[in-house]
Amino acid sequence: MPINPPSPELVDKLVYANRILYDQGIVDGLGHASVRHDSLPHVFLLSCNRAPAMVRRRDIVCYDFAGDAVSETSERPYLERFIHAEIYRARPDVVAVVHSHSPSVIPFAVTHNPLRPVFHMSGFLGSGSAHFEIREAGGNTDMLIRSSYLGEALARSLAGHTCVLMRGHGSTVVGASLEQAVYRAIYAEVNAKLQLAAQGLGEVMYLNEQEAQLSSDMNDGQMPRSWNLWIKRLGEVDLDH
Amino acid sequence: MPINPPSPELVDKLVYANRILYDQGIVDGLGHASVRHDSLPHVFLLSCNRAPAMVRRRDIVCYDFAGDAVSETSERPYLERFIHAEIYRARPDVVAVVHSHSPSVIPFAVTHNPLRPVFHMSGFLGSGSAHFEIREAGGNTDMLIRSSYLGEALARSLAGHTCVLMRGHGSTVVGASLEQAVYRAIYAEVNAKLQLAAQGLGEVMYLNEQEAQLSSDMNDGQMPRSWNLWIKRLGEVDLDH
Amino acid sequence: MPINPPSPELVDKLVYANRILYDQGIVDGLGHASVRHDSLPHVFLLSCNRAPAMVRRRDIVCYDFAGDAVSETSERPYLERFIHAEIYRARPDVVAVVHSHSPSVIPFAVTHNPLRPVFHMSGFLGSGSAHFEIREAGGNTDMLIRSSYLGEALARSLAGHTCVLMRGHGSTVVGASLEQAVYRAIYAEVNAKLQLAAQGLGEVMYLNEQEAQLSSDMNDGQMPRSWNLWIKRLGEVDLDH
Amino acid sequence: MPINPPSPELVDKLVYANRILYDQGIVDGLGHASVRHDSLPHVFLLSCNRAPAMVRRRDIVCYDFAGDAVSETSERPYLERFIHAEIYRARPDVVAVVHSHSPSVIPFAVTHNPLRPVFHMSGFLGSGSAHFEIREAGGNTDMLIRSSYLGEALARSLAGHTCVLMRGHGSTVVGASLEQAVYRAIYAEVNAKLQLAAQGLGEVMYLNEQEAQLSSDMNDGQMPRSWNLWIKRLGEVDLDH
Repeated sequence: MPINPPSPELVDKLVYANRILYDQGIVDGLGHASVRHDSLPHVFLLSCNRAPAMVRRRDIVCYDFAGDAVSETSERPYLERFIHAEIYRARPDVVAVVHSHSPSVIPFAVTHNPLRPVFHMSGFLGSGSAHFEIREAGGNTDMLIRSSYLGEALARSLAGHTCVLMRGHGSTVVGASLEQAVYRAIYAEVNAKLQLAAQGLGEVMYLNEQEAQLSSDMNDGQMPRSWNLWIKRLGEVDLDH
Repeated sequence: MPINPPSPELVDKLVYANRILYDQGIVDGLGHASVRHDSLPHVFLLSCNRAPAMVRRRDIVCYDFAGDAVSETSERPYLERFIHAEIYRARPDVVAVVHSHSPSVIPFAVTHNPLRPVFHMSGFLGSGSAHFEIREAGGNTDMLIRSSYLGEALARSLAGHTCVLMRGHGSTVVGASLEQAVYRAIYAEVNAKLQLAAQGLGEVMYLNEQEAQLSSDMNDGQMPRSWNLWIKRLGEVDLDH
Repeated sequence: MPINPPSPELVDKLVYANRILYDQGIVDGLGHASVRHDSLPHVFLLSCNRAPAMVRRRDIVCYDFAGDAVSETSERPYLERFIHAEIYRARPDVVAVVHSHSPSVIPFAVTHNPLRPVFHMSGFLGSGSAHFEIREAGGNTDMLIRSSYLGEALARSLAGHTCVLMRGHGSTVVGASLEQAVYRAIYAEVNAKLQLAAQGLGEVMYLNEQEAQLSSDMNDGQMPRSWNLWIKRLGEVDLDH
Repeated sequence: MPINPPSPELVDKLVYANRILYDQGIVDGLGHASVRHDSLPHVFLLSCNRAPAMVRRRDIVCYDFAGDAVSETSERPYLERFIHAEIYRARPDVVAVVHSHSPSVIPFAVTHNPLRPVFHMSGFLGSGSAHFEIREAGGNTDMLIRSSYLGEALARSLAGHTCVLMRGHGSTVVGASLEQAVYRAIYAEVNAKLQLAAQGLGEVMYLNEQEAQLSSDMNDGQMPRSWNLWIKRLGEVDLDH
């Protein structure tokens, strides 16, 4: 029995999110973004196995929490769809997930240094990012979250945070909307770049927890300003090609 | 009673300033530039709540020093228009203000290191940038200058300087013309990048105060060369779209 | 007697590889990519002396392991075709070679620091890159591999590795396909940038050998995703101009 | 009596050099390139006071070693034409001069660290760059070389080197042709970036003097490959606009 299709607006927004993440330098050929189905909370939307910059409407597939496609598709899935599945399962508050190898974040992941909020734009980092060590869950692996088991371990490391750094791999951020998850992926990268430079200059005064919370709440109201710019930067976009 | 409108040339120049600041990497979706009204010294021009790259003629609004719009508008204002209002109030010599989160400056702001002039192009930094700690004025906040009270505190930190670094936030520069404020925003960022690299190499020999002053005076005469280039880089610009 | 021509598809792929390497910032005016002839294992294809971004179909020449052209050409060859010749001679498993001066790798080459795999994308670095010191083989030189003798010394340093850093010069990577060699040239550069930043932050936890091997094997299956993106980024390409 | 005009090819080449230096990130609104007149060795060609990216055929002016225009012009000259005049006077071997504020070089200039050749492409740096301290010649100034007196002091610091770093200002390179001077301006910047990163990684093994000399000689023969690429990158160029 076919599932309820997601709203066309949601599909379009996910295609835009993919293109924005590439344009903003957060993903290259790899990385992926997903969003929870708007009427089926146990289903999420994710592209088939394509570079985010090339994702089109027809590439968007619906998956269940086992990582199985529940809409028609003959395309290969991303090996790491379990990142998304297990986070949606563990975190009912999460509506969107972005996984990337954005370059400034990885040095923190591989030295076990948390990201901490350097400025108001990254208040969502709160008192710091979470850390995931895949060896603890899976021993020696190819570093990918290619099973429900590893996805569950990742979701456990993420816990209540907005961002988890993955040693030898990259990072994953979550949001209460697709716009928010994209925003967080972009500003986790910006924050990492700033934090790296700041740590070289001296002792860094980070936002404290209350500042971080107040900033994060405030930014949510300002998000359309950035989102509109990111869309505009894409120029004319054909979502079908 | 409606106020005297600003000259159309001034409005156009402010639109250009917004677009230049984006093109030069000083602002992203956030940040703003203002200019004092050319016939009403207690009024300034600032865009409504839009990303600088997308500001058009019709987005420019006139505000008084209380931060209230004094020209017709139905758009949301920037939350931080008080940065501009209070600096214009405190500093009659200031004709233009740029507030940004330009990336190389922030590491200095969060480690309480002043920017100092590395080369003649940043002579305007004189004997160093000012520093603003919002906690001293407002305790724990969302880091924004969202009231006259906080704006006044910021203006007090700025004092007679050309540039104030704002911990956990960004920076603000002022100028005696819009061109000069844009120039200073751009070269504060350039200087920060150079200073960061130089501090890693050894002891830095900065311009002394007299060199800084002489350089700054000299640069004012060379400004059109850079301004013309910045405009040219924008290509064909439609100020109404 | 003329040799068997290579397949037109292979020639086209090599032209694309050259353009991709420029577009991805791995080569500037210098650097070169080659591929083994698809029916003559003792012959390889390499452009004549041109900037990679400007290589066209008609610039592709066939060379033997002595570095002599075995297809018709009246153009100057690259001085360093012996890099390619001697690696193909020493390593029957190698199907493609990329030599570049990609910028993040050189600091490692001149400080005798090996590249080590920071994340799964660079699993091919295994337990570290090889190092080549031209003075040991040739005394004081112009640093170029301009003879079979020097090429052989380089191949000896490369040994069974995928990547060799060349002091005072650049680096060379090899692959079992042209796609793989291009991928490795790109991600050796990415890894170097990440490793440089990570070493500044603290002790780096690299992939261990097994993780590196598993990652490398996995990536080979994901390569088309990146290759398609790299091609797409080039826009409309005329392989004849 | 009017002077012999320079060859039109030389004028065109100087316009291209200006545009290339901007496209390659060596100059912004400031900086300038000159070339010695092809039939009058005591005359050199330099643009009037314009951003290099905007220089056109009609902006090229002939100057004598006193810094006075000897071809017709009604435009303002660069304040610093004395850099060029005095170097041409002191160094009969020099055919072209580039002065810039290229960003990676300045940290070396302000910490009194010489540039040294990290790789063969910068063999022209020989045993290191020269250093110029304007205070020694002129006391406190606006840092500009705005007189024959200061130009002469700069030329004295340059002595027989190819590159002089200017504290609090930028750098100047010379060449035996315009192509060579442009090449050196570009690779002085590249070398500085590499040297900065390498010094952070450990002890750097620079080219020794003989390696530097041999590399430099070799590169001269490879220069057209890079020059052709730099021209191509400019796309369609109208030298009159």
